[in-house]
Amino acid sequence: MLHGKVLVAQGGGPTAVINQSMTGVVLEARKFRNVDLVYGAYHGVRGIINEDFLDLTQETSHNLEMVADTPSSALGSTRDKPDLKYCQEVFKVLQAHGIAYFFYIGGNDSSDTVRIVSEEARKAGYPLRCIHIPKTIDNDLVHNDHTPGFPSAARFVAQSFMGANLDNAALPGVYLAVVMGRHAGFLTAASALGKKFPDDGPHLIYVPERTFKVDGFLGDVKATMDKYGRCVVAVSEGIHDESGNPIITQLAKEIEKDAHGNIQLSGTGALADLLCQEIKDQLGIKRVRGDTFGYLQRSFVGCVSDVDQREAREVGEKAVQFAMWGQQDGSVTIQRTGFYSVDYKLLPLEAVAGKTRVMEDEFISASGTDVTDAFRLYLRPLLGKGMPDAFRLRSNRVPKVLGR
Amino acid sequence: MLHGKVLVAQGGGPTAVINQSMTGVVLEARKFRNVDLVYGAYHGVRGIINEDFLDLTQETSHNLEMVADTPSSALGSTRDKPDLKYCQEVFKVLQAHGIAYFFYIGGNDSSDTVRIVSEEARKAGYPLRCIHIPKTIDNDLVHNDHTPGFPSAARFVAQSFMGANLDNAALPGVYLAVVMGRHAGFLTAASALGKKFPDDGPHLIYVPERTFKVDGFLGDVKATMDKYGRCVVAVSEGIHDESGNPIITQLAKEIEKDAHGNIQLSGTGALADLLCQEIKDQLGIKRVRGDTFGYLQRSFVGCVSDVDQREAREVGEKAVQFAMWGQQDGSVTIQRTGFYSVDYKLLPLEAVAGKTRVMEDEFISASGTDVTDAFRLYLRPLLGKGMPDAFRLRSNRVPKVLGR
Repeated sequence: MLHGKVLVAQGGGPTAVINQSMTGVVLEARKFRNVDLVYGAYHGVRGIINEDFLDLTQETSHNLEMVADTPSSALGSTRDKPDLKYCQEVFKVLQAHGIAYFFYIGGNDSSDTVRIVSEEARKAGYPLRCIHIPKTIDNDLVHNDHTPGFPSAARFVAQSFMGANLDNAALPGVYLAVVMGRHAGFLTAASALGKKFPDDGPHLIYVPERTFKVDGFLGDVKATMDKYGRCVVAVSEGIHDESGNPIITQLAKEIEKDAHGNIQLSGTGALADLLCQEIKDQLGIKRVRGDTFGYLQRSFVGCVSDVDQREAREVGEKAVQFAMWGQQDGSVTIQRTGFYSVDYKLLPLEAVAGKTRVMEDEFISASGTDVTDAFRLYLRPLLGKGMPDAFRLRSNRVPKVLGR
Repeated sequence: MLHGKVLVAQGGGPTAVINQSMTGVVLEARKFRNVDLVYGAYHGVRGIINEDFLDLTQETSHNLEMVADTPSSALGSTRDKPDLKYCQEVFKVLQAHGIAYFFYIGGNDSSDTVRIVSEEARKAGYPLRCIHIPKTIDNDLVHNDHTPGFPSAARFVAQSFMGANLDNAALPGVYLAVVMGRHAGFLTAASALGKKFPDDGPHLIYVPERTFKVDGFLGDVKATMDKYGRCVVAVSEGIHDESGNPIITQLAKEIEKDAHGNIQLSGTGALADLLCQEIKDQLGIKRVRGDTFGYLQRSFVGCVSDVDQREAREVGEKAVQFAMWGQQDGSVTIQRTGFYSVDYKLLPLEAVAGKTRVMEDEFISASGTDVTDAFRLYLRPLLGKGMPDAFRLRSNRVPKVLGR
């Protein structure tokens, strides 16, 4: 085992359980005698560059447990996407502080950072163990059955649509909500788990794995209105036309791009508003309402899957165990082993880094606007205990007297 | 006691606990021998006009309890605002079906409907007991300490801001969210209950009880950014300029009005997007994100105050008791009697009908952008048991080595 300090950091978008992974790393790492101190970096790789470190060896295990149950990244995060030069700087700081173990909790961009830092250390002949710990509500890491953060966000989306469907049944019309997920439709598809009766919404689900055609969409909405007198729609923020252009670019005045060159999809209600306007204009439906779930779906306090919490904790703990007892760098992955159970494997960083998983074809219905039972079976155990349930009054119609 | 049938209906926007009140009416009414049958009307007064009735005497008490725990209006609702002629039609149907007791669960528009129907019955010499049961997430009924539905919606808003604040701390910038409430800022003000540490957001709260000036708003955001390096803002959908014009009218292409002549404020992200654009353009801040809580805040499944559930049930039960043992029509109101306890009073319909309560001055800080401790003390017990709590890591900075 290497002797030195441990550094843990969090990257990318926060999740409801990312602090479970951080706590898993810290508590497990503090048990090892070859570990001098456990540091946390504020705001991910940016905090490393700035030597913005926190000594987590002096944090109480009690408070770490409380933080573990708190959503969002307690160490702060960053949207920086490091290039080679950036990673070289990261490596220099790790070296200067005598870091022997580097754990980075994040999505596919973060895993790529770990990969480059790992290579730099190897090239420099510096003994550094680098482990990527998975996290993303988008569920888009390859070689993972699913990723920590996704189950809780999925639960939020399912519960949201359960309520929105009830609301729409009470005051009929079209209700449309935009869900996060740039390339992968998993989170949008989770809306289907809010459904109980056959006529419940969401009646239509649009994921980025299928091309979005405005005409087809309008036809689907009209058909649903004709059938049920109301329509609930789940739309991924990442829907795009045949050329791959996001539908939102058709309307946004000013397109904002992040450091990764990605167009800003969240933090604006523009897509929902555009689609609602189309429905009003083209179909002449009056009551059309659009919501954008926005940041609530990844940081809402009080809608967490216990399965997600447990697994997020375990990937952190396993990361330390892989680092201590293993001989190589890698990315911790979640493998499903039963209905329902999982195990964790350390895969080479190159296998996961920078790659994007999208929804498998078997999860999307032939119509392209619904999920399959295979998807329901896949997702249900992840949502955890105590999922709410919606009940309705049974019909016992009273005969009319006036009958006007 | 009058002999005949009982009719219960639900009006206006759904809430998380409105079915508690319906269940309270049905279960209590079914105990009385002078009650032949208990009917529910589908979709409020519109269902009455259409004789669209459900026999709730044939519903199991078990399923009624399950429905009570389900958000949104199980009987359906309506946005119809009845005029005199409409109410006369309502009265005719009630008479034709031998209704002796009419219970309408709703906000101030609904209470006005009950008032007119009550008058029509009196004029016709028809023995009809009419009771209004309070419900509104806006908390804007006069003579009520608060209204059923508000506490659960307030809890959703507080929990949402608790999470949004953590998210904003992890990835700093400006986060702004628009909350429901046309005239009353109670729900927007509830965002303050998500705050724990002095530097937590929401840092700024804008309610319709104060005039909204774009310049002042931008100055407030800038000052907060200078102080904390980030800014979380809660904005009521009902904010307006000095002339009382909604801020949203400054931008919306097409203004939609409902049957009450009200401009559509919900179901669009336009206001949040406008304000975010102003911040970007005028202050040059790059990371500005806007959410609109939309319909989630009134129908989310799984974020309910137990105090709200209990009281919503009680106003339904009390309504029947007032109707059976009392001698007059009226509106059930909630009176606070302790810290924390309530009692219920039946007030004349004219005292409540069509009137709007707004936030008392003592609840709004002198700055106009925060709440007072009096408001915190008022709201906290309503949120109920098991409010989540957010924890953060304690600071133990590590000295820099490179110190670049």
